[in-house]
Amino acid sequence: MLTFVTGNKNKLAEVQAILGDVQQLDVEVHEIQELDPHAIIKHKLDEARHHSKAELIVEDTSLYCDGLKGLPGPFIKWFLKLLGPAGLAKLVIGTGNTRATAKSIVGYSSPSGEIEFFEGRITGTIVEPRGPDKFGWDPIFMPEGFCQTFAEMPQDQKNKISMRRQALDKLKTHLRSR
Amino acid sequence: MLTFVTGNKNKLAEVQAILGDVQQLDVEVHEIQELDPHAIIKHKLDEARHHSKAELIVEDTSLYCDGLKGLPGPFIKWFLKLLGPAGLAKLVIGTGNTRATAKSIVGYSSPSGEIEFFEGRITGTIVEPRGPDKFGWDPIFMPEGFCQTFAEMPQDQKNKISMRRQALDKLKTHLRSR
Repeated sequence: MLTFVTGNKNKLAEVQAILGDVQQLDVEVHEIQELDPHAIIKHKLDEARHHSKAELIVEDTSLYCDGLKGLPGPFIKWFLKLLGPAGLAKLVIGTGNTRATAKSIVGYSSPSGEIEFFEGRITGTIVEPRGPDKFGWDPIFMPEGFCQTFAEMPQDQKNKISMRRQALDKLKTHLRSR
Repeated sequence: MLTFVTGNKNKLAEVQAILGDVQQLDVEVHEIQELDPHAIIKHKLDEARHHSKAELIVEDTSLYCDGLKGLPGPFIKWFLKLLGPAGLAKLVIGTGNTRATAKSIVGYSSPSGEIEFFEGRITGTIVEPRGPDKFGWDPIFMPEGFCQTFAEMPQDQKNKISMRRQALDKLKTHLRSR
């Protein structure tokens, strides 16, 4: 069975909703400092491989702000932890360039350790927080073509267009085509 | 012999100047994503331990900007890579709070794997770049009580007061007291 390496129950539920029968592997895997999420995911898959012989998946979401020359990128977790969504929005708005790209990459490792990547991305703008502050940077990201932030949208609308959904759909297509 | 895990020749020379006979171990060790440099250093020492049975040291320098709530901290390398010293200074100055603390932590691992930490720190302010752009954030950091940036100071003056010097002096005292 497909095994999702994560400690995050929300992400697990989202992945199960899209891919069906997926089990969780909640083990400590290190997140290395790299700008390229592929390297971060590969390292996690390699570490998780010590714990399971199953088909493994790892997901990583990055937020690239043009005004910050691509930061926070894969370091988004720490920006949110220290600045909060409002502080991050203030910083980005202060640069005069609020354009941002959210990228989700899913790494899939076959039992023999071969790794493939599936990517989804969505562009938008960083705005002052709007909507419930429940999940990460959702309140400050307004996808292009919409006038609501991710946090303001109904969950099913966000899930239809999200970068994570796109990446998981690509993985799903790949798995079915085998 | 004391073995310094680093790929950086400049840091090696500085450590040798202070600690005397030190050899280099230039192996790939992963830098994990953590706010606490102790965790980053411990992970590096644990990985390096697979390559050497010697007494090992690892050094990590972080830059904490009050205006950015402690960022970039241990992620300074990526801020410099993406924003450059001038871009980082602009970002910090834009927050209205330019106070910053530079912290160097040296981790020492005995051959049996016991780890001890030695810390040096210096406070100062972030300013627009001044002096030669040779080393990291030196052109934008002006230590408290001085009117020159690290980059403008003669090298020996910087080395007398630097956070790295303080940490290495503490390690030296510790090694001599054994």
